[in-house]
Amino acid sequence: MRIEKDHAVLVAGTRKGLTLGSPLALSIENRDATIEDLPVPTDPRPGHADLAGCQRMGNRDPRAIMERASARETAMRVALGGVARQVLEAFGIEIFAHVLELGGIPVRPDAWEAAGAERHAIRAASAFQSLDPDCEQRLTARVDGAREAGDSLGGVFEVRVMGLPPGIGSHMSGPERLTSRLGGAFFSIPAMKGVEFGLGFESARLPGSQVHDAIVPARKGAPWGRFARASNRAGGLEGGLTTGEPLLARVAMKPIPTLRAGVPSVDFESGEATRSTYQRSDVTSVPAASVVGEAVAALELGAAFLEAFSGASMDHVRAAWEDHLGRLRKI
Amino acid sequence: MRIEKDHAVLVAGTRKGLTLGSPLALSIENRDATIEDLPVPTDPRPGHADLAGCQRMGNRDPRAIMERASARETAMRVALGGVARQVLEAFGIEIFAHVLELGGIPVRPDAWEAAGAERHAIRAASAFQSLDPDCEQRLTARVDGAREAGDSLGGVFEVRVMGLPPGIGSHMSGPERLTSRLGGAFFSIPAMKGVEFGLGFESARLPGSQVHDAIVPARKGAPWGRFARASNRAGGLEGGLTTGEPLLARVAMKPIPTLRAGVPSVDFESGEATRSTYQRSDVTSVPAASVVGEAVAALELGAAFLEAFSGASMDHVRAAWEDHLGRLRKI
Amino acid sequence: MRIEKDHAVLVAGTRKGLTLGSPLALSIENRDATIEDLPVPTDPRPGHADLAGCQRMGNRDPRAIMERASARETAMRVALGGVARQVLEAFGIEIFAHVLELGGIPVRPDAWEAAGAERHAIRAASAFQSLDPDCEQRLTARVDGAREAGDSLGGVFEVRVMGLPPGIGSHMSGPERLTSRLGGAFFSIPAMKGVEFGLGFESARLPGSQVHDAIVPARKGAPWGRFARASNRAGGLEGGLTTGEPLLARVAMKPIPTLRAGVPSVDFESGEATRSTYQRSDVTSVPAASVVGEAVAALELGAAFLEAFSGASMDHVRAAWEDHLGRLRKI
Amino acid sequence: MRIEKDHAVLVAGTRKGLTLGSPLALSIENRDATIEDLPVPTDPRPGHADLAGCQRMGNRDPRAIMERASARETAMRVALGGVARQVLEAFGIEIFAHVLELGGIPVRPDAWEAAGAERHAIRAASAFQSLDPDCEQRLTARVDGAREAGDSLGGVFEVRVMGLPPGIGSHMSGPERLTSRLGGAFFSIPAMKGVEFGLGFESARLPGSQVHDAIVPARKGAPWGRFARASNRAGGLEGGLTTGEPLLARVAMKPIPTLRAGVPSVDFESGEATRSTYQRSDVTSVPAASVVGEAVAALELGAAFLEAFSGASMDHVRAAWEDHLGRLRKI
Repeated sequence: MRIEKDHAVLVAGTRKGLTLGSPLALSIENRDATIEDLPVPTDPRPGHADLAGCQRMGNRDPRAIMERASARETAMRVALGGVARQVLEAFGIEIFAHVLELGGIPVRPDAWEAAGAERHAIRAASAFQSLDPDCEQRLTARVDGAREAGDSLGGVFEVRVMGLPPGIGSHMSGPERLTSRLGGAFFSIPAMKGVEFGLGFESARLPGSQVHDAIVPARKGAPWGRFARASNRAGGLEGGLTTGEPLLARVAMKPIPTLRAGVPSVDFESGEATRSTYQRSDVTSVPAASVVGEAVAALELGAAFLEAFSGASMDHVRAAWEDHLGRLRKI
Repeated sequence: MRIEKDHAVLVAGTRKGLTLGSPLALSIENRDATIEDLPVPTDPRPGHADLAGCQRMGNRDPRAIMERASARETAMRVALGGVARQVLEAFGIEIFAHVLELGGIPVRPDAWEAAGAERHAIRAASAFQSLDPDCEQRLTARVDGAREAGDSLGGVFEVRVMGLPPGIGSHMSGPERLTSRLGGAFFSIPAMKGVEFGLGFESARLPGSQVHDAIVPARKGAPWGRFARASNRAGGLEGGLTTGEPLLARVAMKPIPTLRAGVPSVDFESGEATRSTYQRSDVTSVPAASVVGEAVAALELGAAFLEAFSGASMDHVRAAWEDHLGRLRKI
Repeated sequence: MRIEKDHAVLVAGTRKGLTLGSPLALSIENRDATIEDLPVPTDPRPGHADLAGCQRMGNRDPRAIMERASARETAMRVALGGVARQVLEAFGIEIFAHVLELGGIPVRPDAWEAAGAERHAIRAASAFQSLDPDCEQRLTARVDGAREAGDSLGGVFEVRVMGLPPGIGSHMSGPERLTSRLGGAFFSIPAMKGVEFGLGFESARLPGSQVHDAIVPARKGAPWGRFARASNRAGGLEGGLTTGEPLLARVAMKPIPTLRAGVPSVDFESGEATRSTYQRSDVTSVPAASVVGEAVAALELGAAFLEAFSGASMDHVRAAWEDHLGRLRKI
Repeated sequence: MRIEKDHAVLVAGTRKGLTLGSPLALSIENRDATIEDLPVPTDPRPGHADLAGCQRMGNRDPRAIMERASARETAMRVALGGVARQVLEAFGIEIFAHVLELGGIPVRPDAWEAAGAERHAIRAASAFQSLDPDCEQRLTARVDGAREAGDSLGGVFEVRVMGLPPGIGSHMSGPERLTSRLGGAFFSIPAMKGVEFGLGFESARLPGSQVHDAIVPARKGAPWGRFARASNRAGGLEGGLTTGEPLLARVAMKPIPTLRAGVPSVDFESGEATRSTYQRSDVTSVPAASVVGEAVAALELGAAFLEAFSGASMDHVRAAWEDHLGRLRKI
C-alpha cells in the first residue's frame, strides 16, 4: 500500500489532455521482483487470502493468490480515483480522508473542526494522515512499540465529502442506494472490517428524537434551494440519497496480517503446525488505506454523479447540472 | 416492515414445485390503501427519503418517493431470500439472524452460545427476535417507555451463517470480494447505518497478534480438508473469501423516523417551519429488519454459491460441489 | 405469438398514470391450460429448443423447455415495448414494422413509398401486416396452400424508425454500437435467422461509390442542424450511431417448426425414429413477429435514447434533449 | 485492420504461462503517428462515424471520433479472441472463418467441402482468406479494377465453429439466446451490415418441411449421446442453444468508406459542399474482417462455454465438462 511512490502512466483514452469517451488505460509498473521469480510459500498466512484462495482454486499455490489479493491492486484504484476526483472537483465537490484512530489511540474528537481550512496542510505534515498534530507523538510511540514487539496495528479512518448536492443516488431499489454502493465500495478495500455512516452504530443506541436531522428553512443564498438541516447525524445520506450535507463515513481496518513475530500456520506438505516469520517490517497501513478510501469514494460518487448529471461531454454534464440546480431552487 | 404477515404468491417460473430456469415472478399484494388514493404530504419527513427524493425528481410529491423508499419494498426481498435459502439449505448452509441490542439495551454477550441448538425455539418465543430470554422484560420496558414518549428506537442485529465451505467469493477484484458484496447488501436495507464483520471496529483497536486467526491442522473428519482455525475473529471472511468458519456480521439500524411526537420540517408551500406528527405508532422495526438481514444475506450468498458451484440444474450444482469437496481434501 | 389478443395488467410502478422510477411490473395471464397440467412429450420437436434444452438441462422433460422457449415469452416484450414507445413518441419518434415477404412472396418493392402517411390504415386492413394491398390475395393463397400441405411458412419483415436524431448510440466500443444492440435484439426473438440494416447484404456487393451516403448541406429548417444526407443506404446507422436518417432493418424468420404433416424425431424411451404430428394449425407467425420486432426495437432505442438524454424525470429528459438540439445546430 | 502485423504484449494477469483469474492486460502499441499529432479534418467522412460522432459530442472534432471508431480497435479483440480460442481448443472446438464473396464475386459454393482438412493451408495460401484457389485471379482482378477506379469493395465472410456440444447458450430469455449474443457480436464489428445463421434469409423463403433439421438416432460412438441431425439448415442453433452441429454464420461487410476518388461532404467552417480525397489506398478489408469475425465468435462462445462449464480453474471446468458429457449420453 505504499501507493504514494507509485507512478501511473496514461496509456490510452485521451487526446490533448481530454478524455475521448473510450476506455482509459493506465499502467503502473511493479518495480519489485516480478511474479515469475517470487518463491511459492509452503504455508498459507492467516489474515490473508492465501488459504481460502488456494481452497477456491484447488491447489497449493499461495503465490498465485497473494499477488492479486495484495493491496498492490489498490494502487490502480487510487490512480483511477484521481480521474473521478477531477470530475467532482469541477463541480466544487471535495473528498478528504483522515485517520481517526490507530492501534486504539484516537485523535482529538474535534480534530476536524480544529483543522478548518488548513486541513490539507495539517494532514500533509502528519506521518499518519491525521488532523491532530498533538497526537503525532503518541501515535509514533504506539507504532514503535508494536514494531519492537514484532506486532502490527489497525485503525479507523474517516472519509468526508463536501459540496455534494442533494438527490445523488437513488431510493428506487436496494443496490441503487448510494449507501449500499458506498458501503460495498469501502468493504471492497482489503482488510476493512467495519463501515459506518454519520452516527453509525451510535445511532442504533439513541432515540429517534436525537437521531433524525430536522429540516429547516435554508438561510438566504444557500446553495440547494429552500431547505436545510439543523444537524448532520445521518452523515449526508437519507433513503439512499445525498441530503446536501457533508457525507461522513468511518471505516475500520484490521492490523496487517504479516507479523514479524510470526503467526501459527500449517505446512502444506507435512500438514504440521509451523510458525511463519516475515521480514517485511510495516507495522500499519491505515494512513495508506485512507488514501484508498478517498479513491473508492471518488470512483463511486463520480459514477453516481454522472448518472445524475449525464451527458456525452463535460459541456452536456454541466448543462444537466445547471438545469437541475434551477429545479432545486423551485421545489 | 411487518413482513411476517405478508403473503407472497408465486406467479411464474416453476412447474411441479421446481424452478424452470426462467425468471421467478412473485407477487405480494398491498392490502393497505392503494397508492392512488393516499394523500400527498405537504412537508417532507426528516430521516426518510422524502426531501432528497423530491430534490432528485425536481417536484413536491413526497408520496411518489415514500411508497418506493418504504421498507415495504423489503417484503419481496424476504420472499426471494426464502428461495435462495432453499438452495443453501440443500447443502447444509444455515442463515440465522437475531437482535443483539435494542434502544441501547444489549442482550447477554453469550446469548448465542447459551442458546445452542435451541436457537430457533428461543428466537420464536422472543418478541424481539432475541436469543436472551432474560432481557425480554427490559426490552419491553424500553419500547414501552419510548412509545409513551412518542419516540422511536434503533438497534443492532447479528447475522450468522453456518456451514459455508471455504473459498466462496473472490479475491480477484474489489467488487467481487464477498465482503464487499455482503457489506453492500446489508447497507441496501433502508435505515442501516453501520455494518461490521467478525471483530469489526474492535479489530481496528487490537494488535495483529490478537486479531488474526491461527491456521491449525484440522481434527480428523473435519468437513473442509486438512486446515482449520483456532479462532474466528475474522467473522469467516479473509481476502474477500469465506474461510470455512461461521460468517458473522453485525448491522446497526437507526430508529424509525416517523415519531408520534413529531419532527421539525418545512412546509412546501409556505416555506415555514412545521412540526409533523404521525399516527403510526411503531416504536422499532429492528426485529423485522433482522429478518430482512437474513434475506439479503441469503440472496447474496446464494448468488456467490451458484457462481462457485455452477450448473444448469441442481444435479449439475451438486456435481460441482462434490467435485470441489474432493479437491479441498487434497490441498 | 397471438399477442394481439393478450391483455397486460399493470401491477406496480405507476401512480396516477405516471411511472414512479421504480421497476414496472406487468402481468399477462396465460389463459391456456396451465403448465402443471400439460403433457410431457415423448419426443423432442426439430426446430424448437426441445432437444438442445433437454441436453442442456440433462433430462427428458421438453415441457419444461418449451414453455419458456415459446414465443409466448415475447408477449411481455410487446407490452414493455409499448411503454418504451411512449417515451420515444413524446419526442416525435415513430417505429413502424411491416411484412416484406411471406413464404417467398414479396410485397411490391415500393409498397412503403406508395403507402405514405396512410401506412397505419393500410397495415391495419392487411391480414399480413403488409403495406401492399395488391398482394393480399397471393399471400392468402400461399398460406392456404401451405395449410393444405400441412406445411408452414417464414418470411421477412422490415422495421422503420422515423424521427431519430443523429448521434444516438456510441462508437466507443463494440457492444455499445447501436448496430450491435439492435442486431442482438432482433436475433433475441425466437426463430429469427437473418438481420440486415440499410442495403444489408446488398451493400457487400456494390462498390463504395454506390454505398456511402453523401453528406450535403441541409435545407433550411432541417431538424438536426446544417448537415443532411443525399441517400440512406446505410439504413440510418453509421459507426454504431444514428445518422438522423430513418433507421431501416430487415429481419428474416424461419417457418414455424410445428408442422401438421409432422417432422422426423426420435422417441426418448425407445430411441427409435418417430414422426410427430401436431394439431396446432398455424401456418405462419411472421405478421405477429413483426409486432415483436417493433417492440424490441422500441425497447433498445428507448434505452439508447434515455442514455443520450438522461434524467430523473421526463422534464429532465426534455431539458437534455433541448440542450442537445441547440448544440446540434451549432456544429 | 492490418491486424496481422500487430503485436500484443501481455502486461498482467498471468504467471508461468497460466492465467491467475485476475483481469488480463494486453497492450498493442500504435506505431503510426500518435493521436496528439494527427490533423483534425475539416469535413466529416460519409460512411464513418465522423459526422454522427461529432453530433453526439457536440463539437467539430472528427479526429476525436475516428481514432476510436477506427477498425484499429478490433486489433485488441483479435488478441483477446486468441485467449478465448485457447480455452475452446482445449475442448476440441475449432473456429474457422473464410471469405465467401468479395465485391460481388462469390467463391465456389462447395469451397468448404472441397477444402476439407486442408482448409488451413488453402486459406493461408489465399490473398483473400478464401478456400477457393480457382477464384484468386478473379478476386485480384476485381480489387485491381476497384483500385484503379479509386473505389472500394465489401464482401461476405463465413464463420464456422466445429466441435460445439449441444446445449451451449440459453432459451431462458431473449438476450441470453446464443443467437442474440453472436448476432450482436458480429454487428459489433465496424462496417458489418448483415448477419445470418444457417440458411439465413433463404430459410424465410422455404416451407417448414424444407427448413427444419430432422432429429435421427445417432450412429454408434457419436460424441453427444443418442440424438443426431439429418441436416444442418439451422446453422447449429435452435432455440438460442447450440444443437451439436457446426455453427454457421455469414456476415456482410460494406465497402471501405475512404475512397481515393473521394466522397461528397460538407466543410465544417464554410458549410459548403466539398469532395474529400484520401491517400489511403486500401480497397477492401473483408479478409481482415473475417479474422475479427473469428475473434468475436471466440470471445462470445468462450464466455458461453465458461457459463455452461464453469469453475475456478481449468481442472474445475474440465470436471464440469466431463460430468455434462456423461449426462448427455443418458438423455
